[in-house]
Amino acid sequence: MRYRDSGVDIDKANQATRAIARLAKETWGPEVLSEIGHFGGLFEVPKGMRNPVLVSSMDGVGTKLLIAREAGVFDTVGQDLVNHCVNDILVQGARPLFFLDYVAAGKLEPEMIARVVTGLAKACHENRCALIGGETAEMPGLYQHGDFDLAGTIVGIVERDGVIDGSSIAAGDAIFALPSNGLHTNGYSLVRRVIEKSQLKLDERVEALGSTLGEELLRVHRSYLDAVTAIARTVTIKGLAHITGGGIVENLPRILPDGTGARIDKGTWPVLPIFELIARAGDVVEGEMYRVFNMGVGMLVVVGAQDAAKVPERAEGLTVYRVGDVVPGDGTVHVV
Amino acid sequence: MRYRDSGVDIDKANQATRAIARLAKETWGPEVLSEIGHFGGLFEVPKGMRNPVLVSSMDGVGTKLLIAREAGVFDTVGQDLVNHCVNDILVQGARPLFFLDYVAAGKLEPEMIARVVTGLAKACHENRCALIGGETAEMPGLYQHGDFDLAGTIVGIVERDGVIDGSSIAAGDAIFALPSNGLHTNGYSLVRRVIEKSQLKLDERVEALGSTLGEELLRVHRSYLDAVTAIARTVTIKGLAHITGGGIVENLPRILPDGTGARIDKGTWPVLPIFELIARAGDVVEGEMYRVFNMGVGMLVVVGAQDAAKVPERAEGLTVYRVGDVVPGDGTVHVV
Repeated sequence: MRYRDSGVDIDKANQATRAIARLAKETWGPEVLSEIGHFGGLFEVPKGMRNPVLVSSMDGVGTKLLIAREAGVFDTVGQDLVNHCVNDILVQGARPLFFLDYVAAGKLEPEMIARVVTGLAKACHENRCALIGGETAEMPGLYQHGDFDLAGTIVGIVERDGVIDGSSIAAGDAIFALPSNGLHTNGYSLVRRVIEKSQLKLDERVEALGSTLGEELLRVHRSYLDAVTAIARTVTIKGLAHITGGGIVENLPRILPDGTGARIDKGTWPVLPIFELIARAGDVVEGEMYRVFNMGVGMLVVVGAQDAAKVPERAEGLTVYRVGDVVPGDGTVHVV
Repeated sequence: MRYRDSGVDIDKANQATRAIARLAKETWGPEVLSEIGHFGGLFEVPKGMRNPVLVSSMDGVGTKLLIAREAGVFDTVGQDLVNHCVNDILVQGARPLFFLDYVAAGKLEPEMIARVVTGLAKACHENRCALIGGETAEMPGLYQHGDFDLAGTIVGIVERDGVIDGSSIAAGDAIFALPSNGLHTNGYSLVRRVIEKSQLKLDERVEALGSTLGEELLRVHRSYLDAVTAIARTVTIKGLAHITGGGIVENLPRILPDGTGARIDKGTWPVLPIFELIARAGDVVEGEMYRVFNMGVGMLVVVGAQDAAKVPERAEGLTVYRVGDVVPGDGTVHVV
């Protein structure tokens, strides 16, 4: 009796590793000092900064993965993950430096892995972020055949006096929204239950969406790096809220100082048709919709009242909506 | 009909979040600028370095998790993960700055999560590393009840001219070993198959091990940060190899320059009893044992011939074994 550890197909593993290395290298600038295959990724701290602060975030794609698997689409979840992470550090004023990914599966499928990494590399490239390393794990006893999980870590940088933390936000400030293009990466557990109970089908074309339901649900989480950078060139941004799980009502309070709240005016931005479809098909009440979904708002931008008129109407192709105001309050966000 | 997204028990989630935040904060020094609960973790780049390079690594615990779950022990896998990551960047000369974790489960079990994070925080503390953030994901459709996965990212730092990459290694250099204390985190898929076929039991006390098999298999992956730092105070380290999956024969070649190979002399260090037990119970041939397991060697240290006599006999409580030499060759490691 002879064993080969974990039954890994070595040729397949090497094939996947080579594909990953090739895709990753396309995202590297001169600040990347090592090659994947070494023990760790090397990245030079950018020069010429006075007091650099590293901002990092780790995240997963969540149950959007299960929709992707059902639809057989694997590259967009990689983009979702990177863009989500980019937004998570962007809200503190940081620009991305590098990204590492973790892919775990019951069985290594080199083609599937290559598609996931293609998406990661594409989004890293778009966000000027180096895909510097990662781990691909095969764990047959933990994941069922065909199942996989995907997580990633982003590390970015910002000058200490450029950190955005919302602390200067005050009643009277103006709130702007950058539009989402769909669910991004939140609310998929609810959507999966709605699909199941209402017998909607992923491959069914829905007139109101102009696409199939599957295509709509897998639209890539938008990165707001370029749009926010463009706005920051015109005005001072006091606070940014990435609208993820918990929606506007739970994410905006995270940056509101004591003694403030917010009023968000419905009708000032377009709620995407997919949210109307989910609410109707699942009989989900509006308050719940706002707690689970982004409802068409991917990022909120808070600026001082005196700057409100200077905020551009469009930023890097996205319409910038004036959606509400900071008000005196106890941290509650009222959507009215 | 009303939905609550993903069926997450909010009280339980909050309970887990508070426990994580409390444990994590105990690992923070003054360079940590933010609190968990914000969007991303802030960490000041250490001052006074000439040309700092960030070294990062992402890893999982692999199928050691399944042994831990079977034994109902959850804190040690957190330590395994951190120590493994510390070693992975240590081999490039880096000391750890901060760590982020990813825990995904079918169902959030606050007590289990708290135990995992207790282990993460303990190891972070021991390695002077800040547990700066992480993600806890509940994905009932992906993980079975009771199943969970654990991954993490470490970011460390080194002066550019202090990077250890093995490039100065030459034939004639001396190779030293720091002992492992067991399997660390590799070879568990094979071990699980051996256990299954040979009907060994995790809770059975094994005389040769002086413990139960479960206790032996869950010994915490050793961090070599302090021992390697101590050796580096005495001699110039030319290369370090963390002995993980692939064993000595596949990990040492990763740092050997062209034209060199290595001879490792069996009998110069103690092979732990657990490896003899696995080989016997599973009828695993020796060559295979050396490709799957660390065989008692956790870290290899390469120094110039002229420094060999200066390497201390013990470092931070660990015996330092002289185990072989760098020889002219094609990258092959011969264990003779």
